[in-house]
Amino acid sequence: MLNADIALAGRLLDALQEASVDEPGITRDAYGKGEEAAHTIVLKEAERLGLITTRDAAGNLFMTWPGEHRERAPWIVGSHLDSVPHGGNFDGAAGVVAGLAAVSALKAAGLKPPRPIIVLAIRAEESTWFPTSYIGSRAAFGQLEPSALDLLRADSGRTLAEHMHALGFDAEAVRRGECSIRKGTIHGYVEIHIEQGPTLELDNAPIGLVSGISGSFRYRAAKCLGVYGHSGAVPRRHRRDAFMALAELAMKLDCFWEENETPDAPLTITFGQVTTDPVQHAFSKVPGEVGFSLDVRSTAPALLERADTALMKFAAEIEARRGVHFDWGPRSGSTPAVMDAGILGLLELIAGQRGVLAPRLPSGAGHDAAVFSANGIPSAMIFVRNQNGSHNPDEAMRLEDLEVAATMLAQLLMAEAVK
Amino acid sequence: MLNADIALAGRLLDALQEASVDEPGITRDAYGKGEEAAHTIVLKEAERLGLITTRDAAGNLFMTWPGEHRERAPWIVGSHLDSVPHGGNFDGAAGVVAGLAAVSALKAAGLKPPRPIIVLAIRAEESTWFPTSYIGSRAAFGQLEPSALDLLRADSGRTLAEHMHALGFDAEAVRRGECSIRKGTIHGYVEIHIEQGPTLELDNAPIGLVSGISGSFRYRAAKCLGVYGHSGAVPRRHRRDAFMALAELAMKLDCFWEENETPDAPLTITFGQVTTDPVQHAFSKVPGEVGFSLDVRSTAPALLERADTALMKFAAEIEARRGVHFDWGPRSGSTPAVMDAGILGLLELIAGQRGVLAPRLPSGAGHDAAVFSANGIPSAMIFVRNQNGSHNPDEAMRLEDLEVAATMLAQLLMAEAVK
Repeated sequence: MLNADIALAGRLLDALQEASVDEPGITRDAYGKGEEAAHTIVLKEAERLGLITTRDAAGNLFMTWPGEHRERAPWIVGSHLDSVPHGGNFDGAAGVVAGLAAVSALKAAGLKPPRPIIVLAIRAEESTWFPTSYIGSRAAFGQLEPSALDLLRADSGRTLAEHMHALGFDAEAVRRGECSIRKGTIHGYVEIHIEQGPTLELDNAPIGLVSGISGSFRYRAAKCLGVYGHSGAVPRRHRRDAFMALAELAMKLDCFWEENETPDAPLTITFGQVTTDPVQHAFSKVPGEVGFSLDVRSTAPALLERADTALMKFAAEIEARRGVHFDWGPRSGSTPAVMDAGILGLLELIAGQRGVLAPRLPSGAGHDAAVFSANGIPSAMIFVRNQNGSHNPDEAMRLEDLEVAATMLAQLLMAEAVK
Repeated sequence: MLNADIALAGRLLDALQEASVDEPGITRDAYGKGEEAAHTIVLKEAERLGLITTRDAAGNLFMTWPGEHRERAPWIVGSHLDSVPHGGNFDGAAGVVAGLAAVSALKAAGLKPPRPIIVLAIRAEESTWFPTSYIGSRAAFGQLEPSALDLLRADSGRTLAEHMHALGFDAEAVRRGECSIRKGTIHGYVEIHIEQGPTLELDNAPIGLVSGISGSFRYRAAKCLGVYGHSGAVPRRHRRDAFMALAELAMKLDCFWEENETPDAPLTITFGQVTTDPVQHAFSKVPGEVGFSLDVRSTAPALLERADTALMKFAAEIEARRGVHFDWGPRSGSTPAVMDAGILGLLELIAGQRGVLAPRLPSGAGHDAAVFSANGIPSAMIFVRNQNGSHNPDEAMRLEDLEVAATMLAQLLMAEAVK
């Protein structure tokens, strides 16, 4: 019976962990030391497996097995190798590792896939480094807006283009929109990824099949501006307290969330970063300014729109009543993405044959698969059960769960040959 | 007609400003460069006025005019010279300057006060440098708890005792409780201070007479602890969002405030510092931790107690419902202080004679006068109208309003002779 090469997966994940320790957790910074180290580790493993390795202008790593019929449209099996700062070892990397573990298993079994398989290590999926999402996959399609190349990485003070150049990639080709993946030439895209939420763990399911990917709207650098004052000497009626105003906004949105989400239209609302001005704040001052980020996500476009409308209505009410001003800064976001019914059906069939519990669930988080789906490439995602959430140092995943996903992937890649 | 020496006041305030510029605003750090520069400026002016200058073990500066009867119990006219970081030029300093401007006017008029006048420049009133209030005045009464000398100034990493030693003061005498002011030997204490709130400005009154000083309870380094998670992947029912929990606590307290304060029992509630963990937070993470400060003040002890009880009840409810934990850290605070009816009556008489509008109002902020009052010394405060609040770079005060206060002070100091 075919089983993914879990020894390879374990070895690779250990090596990735070791190369990117940054207590607490690990850091694989996009177009920086951490991501680069991960690409080097993966590249060596691909060469060991006899795959053809190439890099595109943006530094995405293509690891190709031509298979039985090299003229056929290939499968792409991919995910990203960057992480958030002080994140966990599995978000992103697990998908690339699973692709190699599937290939290794097929090779060990003496099988040859009916069409090419490209294991793709994608650059810069996380948007914490440069303030935009899916840099690598959008660049692969020639769709990264030129202005994104001039975005600064806050911690380095250098632009995306400068970071690309420093690693020997061709930012100008990316700026011109040269692509390394052509829409019509790909058979399908499959991404294995940890769930990043607790649902599979609570449902005792090792894996899940993603029904759709949330879209979002985001204010990454918003501010509430009030007026500083002495904490004991400004009476309530004269206050213009920036934090109290933000707290009221948060509670109003929390109520909206509770009242408006449904199983078919899930919603998440997160103020991830909240900070009074460290230069001017004091425990004995009414805060005159508080910076914050706001991230709102849903698979339902209509609910996203209603949430944004509600946000602006709440903010206007609070501004009038509390004498503050919300400065929203740039708005960014993404549209929800659909997954391919055909691939999902095949994966459900395979899960059924193996007796694997594989519930469908929405993805509240964004993924590179959304970019492939938006380009008309039949796309699917397999979520692997994980513990302690994601984007944090305590992120966890059981290797045997990854093995289930990678083995199903290997079967999918051979499916035409079996039929 | 007697008028305070406003030219001296203007000159001194300009010199203080110049010596402590720290854009935005000014900084006179307690037992540091800024406060020391201010003491040097004031000392020189006192010497120019022919006052006897001495410093006590804690570095408080006594500037004495023996007057007609040096054996009588003296008036003390004082305030502090330190400021909050990036504060304004008038909070504290205005009172010391006003004392010297009153003395200068009496001398220029050839008058000799019936009892000694001590203009007192007090150390370290603000509690933003070392995490405790009224260091200078409590040390003058030999009442600074010995452990306070081991408190660290966060920005310097050195203890209060080390800071005192560095300036040549005698921290060990302070630790032993040696006093420079004996309870029974003082005729009265008067402190002129900017209001720090908008009430006098809104009432078109140049000065106000303080009816009482608020007490407080404070949690300077509290935390709300939740669990980090992916902002898109953790559904609402599974979240343990530290910021949403804090926002709910803030809104519940804001409601309590609105419903429970009265004109006779005013209340203030301030979350001055709020910060998600800069090492671990991200716009795409549910925040697992948020640090905050909370400062609650009232002139009514019973209301303070009810507010603390309500706080703990709200926190417990939120902990149970949201799966978070409030870690309060050390609790500090002070008890409300009463002002002397006799001195207040005299000041109202003087105001009436001069046609000055001088409403009574509570002080929401704490002042050194609270320490004098607690030691049984008849105490009073004159508030000077100010603009743009206090503890911020935009703090403002009109010299002519300070002149009104200092002139009333000069009359008070001569009151016995006039009678």
